[in-house]
Amino acid sequence: MEAKQAALAHAEELLTCDGVTLAPEASVEGRARTLGVLSEMEYEIAASPEAQRLLEELEEHSDELDEQVRREVKVLRRETAKILKIPAEEYMQYSMLVSEASDVWIRAKNSNDYALFAPYLEKIVAANRRMAALWNPNEEPYNVLLDNFEEGLTTEACDGFFRTVRSEIVPLLEKIKEIRAPHEAFALRAYDLAGQEKLAHALMDLEGIDAKRCVLGTTEHPFTSGFNNKDVRITTHYHENSFLSSVYSVLHEGGHAIYEMNGDDRFNYTCLYGGASMSIHESQSRFYENIIGRSRAFSGPMLKVCREIFPEQLRDVTEDQFYREINIAEPSLIRTEADELTYSLHVMVRYEIEKQLIAGSLSVAEVPAVWNNLYEEYLGIRPQNDREGCLQDSHWSGGMLGYFPSYALGSAYGAQMLARMEEQVEHVWESVADGDLEPVTAWLKENIHQYSALYPPMELLERVCGKFDPSYYTNYLKAKFTELYHL
Amino acid sequence: MEAKQAALAHAEELLTCDGVTLAPEASVEGRARTLGVLSEMEYEIAASPEAQRLLEELEEHSDELDEQVRREVKVLRRETAKILKIPAEEYMQYSMLVSEASDVWIRAKNSNDYALFAPYLEKIVAANRRMAALWNPNEEPYNVLLDNFEEGLTTEACDGFFRTVRSEIVPLLEKIKEIRAPHEAFALRAYDLAGQEKLAHALMDLEGIDAKRCVLGTTEHPFTSGFNNKDVRITTHYHENSFLSSVYSVLHEGGHAIYEMNGDDRFNYTCLYGGASMSIHESQSRFYENIIGRSRAFSGPMLKVCREIFPEQLRDVTEDQFYREINIAEPSLIRTEADELTYSLHVMVRYEIEKQLIAGSLSVAEVPAVWNNLYEEYLGIRPQNDREGCLQDSHWSGGMLGYFPSYALGSAYGAQMLARMEEQVEHVWESVADGDLEPVTAWLKENIHQYSALYPPMELLERVCGKFDPSYYTNYLKAKFTELYHL
Repeated sequence: MEAKQAALAHAEELLTCDGVTLAPEASVEGRARTLGVLSEMEYEIAASPEAQRLLEELEEHSDELDEQVRREVKVLRRETAKILKIPAEEYMQYSMLVSEASDVWIRAKNSNDYALFAPYLEKIVAANRRMAALWNPNEEPYNVLLDNFEEGLTTEACDGFFRTVRSEIVPLLEKIKEIRAPHEAFALRAYDLAGQEKLAHALMDLEGIDAKRCVLGTTEHPFTSGFNNKDVRITTHYHENSFLSSVYSVLHEGGHAIYEMNGDDRFNYTCLYGGASMSIHESQSRFYENIIGRSRAFSGPMLKVCREIFPEQLRDVTEDQFYREINIAEPSLIRTEADELTYSLHVMVRYEIEKQLIAGSLSVAEVPAVWNNLYEEYLGIRPQNDREGCLQDSHWSGGMLGYFPSYALGSAYGAQMLARMEEQVEHVWESVADGDLEPVTAWLKENIHQYSALYPPMELLERVCGKFDPSYYTNYLKAKFTELYHL
Repeated sequence: MEAKQAALAHAEELLTCDGVTLAPEASVEGRARTLGVLSEMEYEIAASPEAQRLLEELEEHSDELDEQVRREVKVLRRETAKILKIPAEEYMQYSMLVSEASDVWIRAKNSNDYALFAPYLEKIVAANRRMAALWNPNEEPYNVLLDNFEEGLTTEACDGFFRTVRSEIVPLLEKIKEIRAPHEAFALRAYDLAGQEKLAHALMDLEGIDAKRCVLGTTEHPFTSGFNNKDVRITTHYHENSFLSSVYSVLHEGGHAIYEMNGDDRFNYTCLYGGASMSIHESQSRFYENIIGRSRAFSGPMLKVCREIFPEQLRDVTEDQFYREINIAEPSLIRTEADELTYSLHVMVRYEIEKQLIAGSLSVAEVPAVWNNLYEEYLGIRPQNDREGCLQDSHWSGGMLGYFPSYALGSAYGAQMLARMEEQVEHVWESVADGDLEPVTAWLKENIHQYSALYPPMELLERVCGKFDPSYYTNYLKAKFTELYHL
């Protein structure tokens, strides 16, 4: 059963990955159809009486199982229980819907045409509400969706977390906004795309990514797709006038890839492959992107690698200038391009909207206006069009409602992990300053990566660095940006 | 049943295609595993009592079915009968074996190490003999394998066909060899790889390929992979000092792609998608590559497109020089680079070897020596290493024993189709000379492409241009090369 599910998951991931990278434009229909049929097959496997009987039996003898099998049974029970509550026909329809919607979203974004995407979002929201009610009729639907991505996460917990973050970050941002630090000249220069691709590979190297197990592609919206710990794909996008966009996409997706590649072999082809949860995954990607990638220590090695490929553009740049530029904090419109400080506020906009969409207190038609209003409220800046507004992210088109909070939680987890890492790894920042991430990655592998989904996310976090405490995150940000901006 | 098979086939094709284009090196094991499980699932679907009962029932009411469904039932019966005769375990093992062998073959070829590949070939030959005996214990195993790719094809028929070809072509080649036409200077110049990639896209355009439905990739050994008529992939390879190699790979694979894209929508996601047989497929790819692509009429448009991208290298070349260069006939070592005249002789080497391997009269260890001897015998030239010898083709590593004859048959079918096309399409060569392949493709679509596998190959050929007669082919070659070499 698990082997078949793993094989189907591998095929589905590759079809999806291919769909947004290489596949010809007209391939949409055939891919949607195939994904629909494969997910129907997944359903049938999970729903089969034999599979259910087997899982029940294993669960009954849970204490005789080793730790890994016990956890596999638990995860499979949780997953199949979810699947079994959705009628087969609806499950297949939904899979085809999100496949089509993903392609429509790309067109809608490119043509700044929210109306094109709206009917699909409508259907996706409705389907998610229906599914949430089927999964757990006694719970608020949005809580059910949050739990879907992060076991045990609730609206209440998110509200509390975001309240804390907001109360600490908004005042900090207010002060910084007054300073209005100018961009460094180098950031605005032209960087040819062929060079940027070369740089992307050099950065993967610097990050310690094994090219035999991970390849790089190009796509609209960067992502990571891992099939097993020896076959991971990351993607980036190139814009001539903002080379740092690709640089940090590569570090971010590279963080996801390292996590997947460092999982133990024993989790390959099982339901435990791929990581503990979305938040833990984001904690790793953002660890490499921000905590390491935007640190003062790593600015030296980063600048060196960038300068090897773009000597002209970066001739006159100092490490301090580089460090300041990659940490300019300012209100902006695009989440994936947001700086480390304001990032959570972008997430909060999406969180508020999807919470209301699912609650039914906001209609799909109202999304663009509410989006723009919330950007004004939280960030003090207003999108001029939906392409830079509510059409910018792929998540909703892929049916991922309840996912966004994990981005912000991931950053917070990462800061808490860092505190423990600094206690346990001697001279860690000296190594980073030498461009050697081996001690960092070894610690993350030892404490997090190797376990894949063997432990539930909160349990894993507690094992590594104690109970979740968002003040590690806010303290980290306050310290970093107070020093950077001489506040 | 058919929907599931189509979805699994789509996934398997994409996994395989990805494996030889983009996938990271270490991904071999995971892909082999997934392909093994998926093919086990295909087996289970085909072998299920319900599926068998359904097919039997449909067959009993065959006269009530429309032409397409009747044919689908027949093809599925043929295919599932074959599958059912192989034990599930062996079927899965074989699928994993060829997946691994394909990757080993690439390494063996790159390192010119036949010994690395030999154990895999050994297993593949043994498995094919076992499967042939299971499929039809009353038939010579090699006949069974031939029939596998081309319904009704026999060793006797192949022996006869090759005898004819040989008796006509070898004397022609003997005469031409004495002339020893020199290569044109332009063919040996350096053509940068980026320009060659641009040229590949321009040639796809000239060939009339819809870029919305077909994309181009890069690989060691060019191939075409079609998932449905709106999603086809072709690949090529680039060598700086032989740009014509990629040029004709693109025309060849483009021919396969046009065939698949011109199939009726109604055959998508059915067992009839993809073409009537391997030989008919090759007749189309070689039609575009040779009959059109190496014609005097098309030399003008070809040279024009090539010169737009490589003006320096092709400045001083006339259409006649171009035509002569693309038709230089001479003994050579690499089948895929062979000229139109000698091509069948390359195929004959492989045919003789695999016939004997399957018969058991030749051991895997003897293959390199026999290969080299046969090249000397048929072509008068001897490979200096296995990389240029028996390791050059991917087919055996992919388990395709009994496939090679279809290449030569395809050329012969194409020549016979051409004769009919010339009768039916007015001014066809004038259009080709204008760079307009629309009349050619429209005729092929009308007569061949649209039908996919609705008719068995021989029946399709007869409908189009009467009973198969190899003299069309030999006459075509004699006329073309006698004129070219003023014999």
